[in-house]
Order: sequence, then C-alpha cells, then structure tokens
Amino acid sequence: MSTSPKFAVFGGGSWATAIVKMLCENLDEVGWYMRNVYALEHIKKEDHNPNYLSSVEFKVEQLKLSNDINEMVRYADYLIFVIPSAFIYSELEKVTESLKGKVIFSAIKGIVPETSLIVGDHFYTHHNIPFEDIGVITGPCHAEEVALERLSYLTIACADNEKAKIVAKNLSSDYIKCTTSDDIIGAEYAAMLKNIYAIAAGIAHGLGYGDNFQSVLMSNAIREMKRYVKKVHKMKRDINNSAYLGDLLVTGYSVFSRNRMFGNMIGKGYTVKSAQMEMSMVAEGFYAAKSAYMLNNKKDKKKAKTPIINAVYNILYENKNPKKVFKKLTEKLN
Amino acid sequence: MSTSPKFAVFGGGSWATAIVKMLCENLDEVGWYMRNVYALEHIKKEDHNPNYLSSVEFKVEQLKLSNDINEMVRYADYLIFVIPSAFIYSELEKVTESLKGKVIFSAIKGIVPETSLIVGDHFYTHHNIPFEDIGVITGPCHAEEVALERLSYLTIACADNEKAKIVAKNLSSDYIKCTTSDDIIGAEYAAMLKNIYAIAAGIAHGLGYGDNFQSVLMSNAIREMKRYVKKVHKMKRDINNSAYLGDLLVTGYSVFSRNRMFGNMIGKGYTVKSAQMEMSMVAEGFYAAKSAYMLNNKKDKKKAKTPIINAVYNILYENKNPKKVFKKLTEKLN
Repeated sequence: MSTSPKFAVFGGGSWATAIVKMLCENLDEVGWYMRNVYALEHIKKEDHNPNYLSSVEFKVEQLKLSNDINEMVRYADYLIFVIPSAFIYSELEKVTESLKGKVIFSAIKGIVPETSLIVGDHFYTHHNIPFEDIGVITGPCHAEEVALERLSYLTIACADNEKAKIVAKNLSSDYIKCTTSDDIIGAEYAAMLKNIYAIAAGIAHGLGYGDNFQSVLMSNAIREMKRYVKKVHKMKRDINNSAYLGDLLVTGYSVFSRNRMFGNMIGKGYTVKSAQMEMSMVAEGFYAAKSAYMLNNKKDKKKAKTPIINAVYNILYENKNPKKVFKKLTEKLN
Repeated sequence: MSTSPKFAVFGGGSWATAIVKMLCENLDEVGWYMRNVYALEHIKKEDHNPNYLSSVEFKVEQLKLSNDINEMVRYADYLIFVIPSAFIYSELEKVTESLKGKVIFSAIKGIVPETSLIVGDHFYTHHNIPFEDIGVITGPCHAEEVALERLSYLTIACADNEKAKIVAKNLSSDYIKCTTSDDIIGAEYAAMLKNIYAIAAGIAHGLGYGDNFQSVLMSNAIREMKRYVKKVHKMKRDINNSAYLGDLLVTGYSVFSRNRMFGNMIGKGYTVKSAQMEMSMVAEGFYAAKSAYMLNNKKDKKKAKTPIINAVYNILYENKNPKKVFKKLTEKLN
C-alpha cells in the first residue's frame, strides 16, 4: 500500500456526510458512494447533500462520487462503511469486487440483523476480512456539530494500531481530535447499546420522569453497559472513556438524537408502528434492542443483568405498557 | 434514643425546603430552623417558603419552626444541616447547646472555607462528633423536582448503617427512593467536586462548545473525580453509582444548576465579580474550586491529575482568560 492510501465513504446519511467532510480537510480526493442517484447528482451540481447536513459545502472536484459500489471498492484502500445496519447486508450483497487487502472501517452503530453480528464480526465471518484489517470509528459525535465545526472527539479502534493511526490522522483537524484504541469489540457494542439507552431516556421523558431520574437512568445504563460488554469481550477497559460513557451521554442527553425522539414518542403513547411512521430516519436502537436482548438470552450463555435493555425490549417487541414497565424498572435501579 | 427519633432541618434554602417536605411525608412533627425571621413568619401565615420552592405547601401544625438554633439543637435527635458551606461556620458558632449524642447529617455540598474541611470532617474535628454519628445525604436530586414530586433517588451515607437506614426510611416516599452507603467521605467529596465540573460545563457552553464536547468533558470529569476521591480516601467504590456519576450528570447537564449558570456567564465574558453580583444564590462550586485545588496542591501530598479543576481555578482565582484556558484544556482531554 502506498504512503497515501485512498479513502472512500459508503453511505449517504448525515454521519457519512460528516465523515466525508472530515476527510476533505486532509485529502486531495475522497471517494463517496451512495445509492441515491438523485442526491449524488444534487451534490455534483449544488455542492451539498440535499438530504443531510445540507449546510456543508463540498468542493466537488475533491469528491469521487459514484453510485456503483464496486467501482468504489476497487478505487479505495480504506473503506469506511456508514450505512444503517438495517441495510448493510443487502448493500454488501452487491459487492462482487474483491475485498482482499482492503482495510474496512465501520462507523455503523448497530448489529447486522440478518446475521446478528456486530459489523466487524460480520466482515470477519462473512467476508473473510482478517481482524487486523477491521476497525471502528466511534463518537461521542453528533454529525450536526461536525457540520458546525464544533470541537468533537472520535475514537478510532483497530487491532492494528498503525491502521488506526492512519485513519485518525486523516480524520483529524482543528475541530476533530482522535484517540486510538484496540478495543474494537467493546467500542462496537457500546455504540450499539447506547442507542437502546437513548430510547430508554426518551421513553422516561415521554412518561414525565424528570432530570433527577434521567441521571439515575444514565448512571445505571453505564453500569449495565459495562456488565454487558464484559460478558461479550473481557479485557481491561475504562468504561468511563469518551468512546463508551461519552458516547452514551451525547446520545442519551441529546434532544436531537433520533433514538431518544423515538423513545419519547413511545413514552407519550404512540404505538411502535406509528412512532416509526412519524420518523423519516431509522432509529438504530430499535433493531439493537432486539439483537442485544436475544444475544444476552442465548441458551448456552451466562446472562448479564440488563434491566434497562429488557424494559425497552418488552415495550418495543412484547407490546408491554411503557408506564407499567418503567414503574417496575424504577424498583431495579439505584 | 427512642424508636421514633426527632428530626430537625437547619437551613432555609431550596434544598432545605425539599428535605423538610420529604420528612413531612413520614413524620408527625419536623423541626425547621432558619435565620430569616421574615421567611419563618411567612411560612407560619402562608404555609410556604416565600423564597424557595414556594409552590410547596406545608401543614404548619406539622412544623416546629424556630430561628433559635439552640432551641432546635435541643429539640432534635437527628440534625440535618443544609446551610451553604460559606455560612455553616458562623452558624455553628452560635451553638452553645451540647451536640453530644446527636446524630448529624449534612446535605451541604462543599467545604467549610474557614477550616478547609468537608462538613463531616469539620463536625468530627471541631465539634468532637464521633464518625458513627455523622452522615451525608446526597443526590442526584434537584430540589425543584422534589417540589414537583418527580421520582428522585438519594444516597444516605453513614459509617453506622443503622443510622443511615433510619434517615433513609424517614426521607423515602412514593417519589423518593433511598440507597444507603458507608462511603461518607467519597460521597461528600463527589458532591463538592461535581459543582466545579458544573461550572466547567457552564464555561464551555458560554464559550460556544457544543454537546459533543460536553460529553467528553463529563466523561473526563468522572475519571478526574475518581482519581481525586481515591487520593483522599481509598476504598472500593463504583464511581458510576448514582451518588457520584448520577450527581455529576444531574448538575452538569442541568440548565437550572446555579453552578452551571455561573460558569456560563464566565464563559460569555462576565467577570467573576459581575457574574456573582448577577446571581442571587450562592454557587457552591466557586468556593469548592479553591478548596479542591488547594487541597490537591498541598506540599506534603501526592497530587491527583486534575486538569479540569485546575482550569476552573485558574479562571476564577488567577484571572486567566477562559477562552485560552479551555483551548489548552481541550488538548488534555480524551
């Protein structure tokens, strides 16, 4: 691989748009794949993504845009996937180009529903990517604040620290600071779980619980996350690092988080179906709640104690009454 | 001591008023001392505190009101002090009645400026109260939400668990859940430090930093708090429990916190003096910043790494430029 590897971002949403913006601060050319041809043409003509972070202006000559996923796989050395987990499986089915020798980073927060695997494991298991070529980009980071160039911190996790450093270098700028880590699995699970806790925070808010309770909920959530991640992958990690606690807080306390918003609607009495129909964006936590619950309740596994995930699962998938479920949950928190 | 001990609350502010309200849910009579005679007379006539949580209506026949501190000390078995730390020393100078055999609980979040001691240590050192008769009541809990009877959790810490349980029982109700703990020192320091971090959060907000940065700041703050408290009193504690992390979050993320508000003014360019004059309530974190900094920088002591406390101290007491100090601070966080 040459000293200046080629980067491509796969996805057309707000987080993908933010990552393209970060890379454009450092690279002469950035590959960008999205399936939406209309959006692609709009960017070429109007210099911005029409649907997400539309205030961000790109220099189009810096972008290598394509809606052909194979062309983009061929082009890049570092592939950054930022497609919602619900669509990643079908998108990857289109890839006929070899992924061998490519470095794959995921900025997806969720589990691949078709395989019940976190994205890194999915690439390892289903695409034969060796672990040292797989990495994760994680927050705490709202895309909207990247658009405003407000100081944000990212954690770049990869078993191969050199690769983490290369990605970190190319994402860093005046307003982006990157830390590297080797805890891919922990970072991925934390990024997934925090969306479930954001739904829980939203439900609590919708039900009329106040700030005092929210702080207790978040304090219990980080302890639950610690137990969960430890069960999945035991290693020395400080759960209070930005990649875990910070990421939980930015999502759980943000009124802009779509997961929190989705939960809020549920708390206010919307059915799951109607809340989903009201929202034009995917609430990753909806899928994560099922995957996380199922994974924790596999027969052959020792369970982590997860009262919050269980509560969210029961409300979203078992049609249980949010008010009653949360009343019971309050007895289990401290 | 009889099976139903007498309780008295010392202080007339919002947190004192909230605690009186909690006790009134359980006791036939609650003692309440405050120095403000006008407020006292107002409560007697109008059934509510004119200055704080004025929406809370008391049954006056349930209250034993007095502005004579010695009368109240004589009356009660359990004395709960809720006087701002800046005034506790001078208030206690008035006490001629013996404190021997009394159980003293502090709901004060700060250090006694005259002795540089946390309140528990102050009672032990200056009033010869044995440690098993000293306890702490800590949040996460905004008084305003107690007034609204929104579910809140308290931690009651005392070396003598039986006494913690008695206080817990008398504060608990439909909307108050209490946990007991034996970590008085940790709980007291955490309650003090969180106010400094709330000032830091306010300064950051005032300077224009966004939610992404706030989450990194809070994630660094809890790690800093852990290091600090460990240096002061090493014991097995989970810093992510509600008494520590929860308390930090409810203060750091609340727009109603006076510490955060004070910091916000500083970040927006007010001088320390003018920010203090604008605020009619005492921002405990202002005093705490000095005490915590001084304590950590004592010559004969090994220092904890405290970049956030140092930054707040430098801005508040060394007249350093907030923008520059925070720019430097961002380099130390991760």
